[in-house]
Amino acid sequence: MAFPEFRPLDEKSLVEYIKVTPFLSSKIGDKYDDIKIKEVGDGNLNFVYIVVGASGSFVIKQALPYVRSLTESWPMTKERAYFEAVALKEHGGLCPRHVPEVYHFDRTMSLIGMRYLEPPHIILRKGLIAGIEYPFLAEHVSVYMAKTLFCTSLLYRSTTEHKRADNVVIPNVMALERNASVLAEFCGNVELCRLTEQVVFSDPYKVSEYNRWTSPYLDHDAEAVRDDVILKLEVAELKSKFCERAQALIHGDLHTGSVMVTRDSTQVIDPEFAFYGPMGYDIGAFIGNLILAFFAQDGHADQGNDRKIYKEWILKTIEDTWNLFHQKFTALWDQHKDGPGEAYLPAIYNNPELQKLIQEKYMKELFHDTLGFGAAKMIRRIVGVAHVEDFESIKEASIRADCERRALELAKTLLKRRREFLSISEVISAIRHVQS
Amino acid sequence: MAFPEFRPLDEKSLVEYIKVTPFLSSKIGDKYDDIKIKEVGDGNLNFVYIVVGASGSFVIKQALPYVRSLTESWPMTKERAYFEAVALKEHGGLCPRHVPEVYHFDRTMSLIGMRYLEPPHIILRKGLIAGIEYPFLAEHVSVYMAKTLFCTSLLYRSTTEHKRADNVVIPNVMALERNASVLAEFCGNVELCRLTEQVVFSDPYKVSEYNRWTSPYLDHDAEAVRDDVILKLEVAELKSKFCERAQALIHGDLHTGSVMVTRDSTQVIDPEFAFYGPMGYDIGAFIGNLILAFFAQDGHADQGNDRKIYKEWILKTIEDTWNLFHQKFTALWDQHKDGPGEAYLPAIYNNPELQKLIQEKYMKELFHDTLGFGAAKMIRRIVGVAHVEDFESIKEASIRADCERRALELAKTLLKRRREFLSISEVISAIRHVQS
Repeated sequence: MAFPEFRPLDEKSLVEYIKVTPFLSSKIGDKYDDIKIKEVGDGNLNFVYIVVGASGSFVIKQALPYVRSLTESWPMTKERAYFEAVALKEHGGLCPRHVPEVYHFDRTMSLIGMRYLEPPHIILRKGLIAGIEYPFLAEHVSVYMAKTLFCTSLLYRSTTEHKRADNVVIPNVMALERNASVLAEFCGNVELCRLTEQVVFSDPYKVSEYNRWTSPYLDHDAEAVRDDVILKLEVAELKSKFCERAQALIHGDLHTGSVMVTRDSTQVIDPEFAFYGPMGYDIGAFIGNLILAFFAQDGHADQGNDRKIYKEWILKTIEDTWNLFHQKFTALWDQHKDGPGEAYLPAIYNNPELQKLIQEKYMKELFHDTLGFGAAKMIRRIVGVAHVEDFESIKEASIRADCERRALELAKTLLKRRREFLSISEVISAIRHVQS
Repeated sequence: MAFPEFRPLDEKSLVEYIKVTPFLSSKIGDKYDDIKIKEVGDGNLNFVYIVVGASGSFVIKQALPYVRSLTESWPMTKERAYFEAVALKEHGGLCPRHVPEVYHFDRTMSLIGMRYLEPPHIILRKGLIAGIEYPFLAEHVSVYMAKTLFCTSLLYRSTTEHKRADNVVIPNVMALERNASVLAEFCGNVELCRLTEQVVFSDPYKVSEYNRWTSPYLDHDAEAVRDDVILKLEVAELKSKFCERAQALIHGDLHTGSVMVTRDSTQVIDPEFAFYGPMGYDIGAFIGNLILAFFAQDGHADQGNDRKIYKEWILKTIEDTWNLFHQKFTALWDQHKDGPGEAYLPAIYNNPELQKLIQEKYMKELFHDTLGFGAAKMIRRIVGVAHVEDFESIKEASIRADCERRALELAKTLLKRRREFLSISEVISAIRHVQS
């Protein structure tokens, strides 16, 4: 072990740390004269250092015991680094093309060393704000979601693998924490789940010191959210699912800020909120944030670019994401229907008609979960504590408020009437209707 | 520790064990000359010894590493004694009137020492077969279910208490395993959950060497279960809830053989299948087994007693059980709505209209879960591996088959159409309809 107890690193002590950590020092050929270190964390919870040497590079992410953006007023367990490392390993094993490789994990220091996603990788959200099209985005994210969600669910796993904390060999999990990625272990990630419960499912629906919105324009809209009986009834059902349903090992924070992209590469990062929860929470997070990106476009339009074509690309990406996910997920299901997964035993369900009915039922519920969670994630970004740069970067408050109001209107419809939507194309129509 | 490693006790070694275990020896005043020991286990998984001395008594229950009735062909973790002890402590703390007190627990020996439920206590199932009315049964069982289920759910607990395996103080859990009764801990009870998954949700719906039924009378009925597409679709949904939904610390096997009664006393025993699961599984187990008892009555009728009055008492008990449970559960909810439970935060839901809507929605879903799980429990007792004495004690096979067929018919209706039932009185009508 490099350092005997936890201490927050700075650029100087980081070098000391690398020197005594062979997994890291070997990456840069043990040469320190010309290494470049840059702190780039723009999240709320961590320090992130890029380390580039002559012969290689990596990223160091260290979790601190509080929410960074609120200084030290909101304590937050640094154990989240552990859950992040385990989830990166597990999801990376299932989908190595879209998850950065982990080189090193130090639980004492709450520190992960992983692949540096070199330029031109940028955070997807910034690309969406800039109006950049990513032709493979829907394909890549859908394959990531299909593989990670399917393969950590009871459609693929036995109930023993799913539940047990010991004595289980999980394929593709490396030596890091061989048996960690099962339900019992992730019960420990309770603090980050609590943060989600509060900021996503609770605060936006009550008066809270943390809430904010584009005032005074949205004062009435924020109040309407707090007074909407049906909305609050529905969000309670989603919260219950979030807290109680251990469907798969989900990323837990799969918004467009947790994805790094180039034209050809899509990398999912930051799974520190990972836990065994409902699949629709991940799919909804991604799609909900694409919808926010869509509604923000009018605020980014200018004389040179009215963003109309780009908005169509976003809509197509939303539609493709769900449809491709559906296709890949059910293909995995068909492929593994005679495997060890225990949700639907072949001896009972190995009948084409029944198999079809079961998939339809499962995918329909997953679609409605996706819409509900996606809508909840949208609402909290408009009237809750943490906003998104898509809207925040629109300088003119009245224009920003118009964009946000449309997004909020759509989100309320999706959350309250999600069961009436039968396909993603109906959702696209609803988005167009609100936009027009 | 009395014995350094696990060994199955017999009547002789049990005395040695008691002698070196002060918690037990003190119960009988350290006198061994006149103690009486009787082995009474009629379950499938354990040895049970009644120990009666001059100055006191207790029961010793020891779990063996296999299912007893199948000799050693079906290995079964003896760790279930641990889950049973923890659940007895937790449920006993919440509802001491209806759970026997635990005096001693020895994890190494998989052994629990607890209150001896002295005569005239008998197993409820035997009382139902004998046609004995228990005027307080519905009241007692409903208060047990309301307290244990409400107080281990997110309606009463914070999400931290619910999930975390350490660092949490749970009210009313004694020194035995202070922090054990939380979700992470019960993830370990995976083997007994697996047994349930197999015998309740899987085997009855496929060809299995373990299945049996009153043949040849029910051959067609058993086949019809295996061929019923809608039934299998619905039972898959229930299985998924059973495997994935951590709603409360449930008993896990609350049939009429897990309840001991006198006219005035009702004691719930044998929670070795306890885990964090769906509440409706407990309520359904109890009500489903009462329905089995109802349909078995025609097989027990004779010239001296046509059982008509008794059947009405069973129907009333079914109706009262749900209605009293509903009343007590929602009363607990009203009483604690401003407490630490995190499912519905007062700041969001403290509005009488909304509170009412939420309770109605919650209780409606719980009612439908209850009917679904209850029906699944009925079906597995007719065409699965383990049958119930209610039917087994009907000697004439054709009469037994008639009784079983009616119960099966009702169960299929309940399972497939449970969402159409709006109240327990409609269920009673359906029972009468099948009976007539």
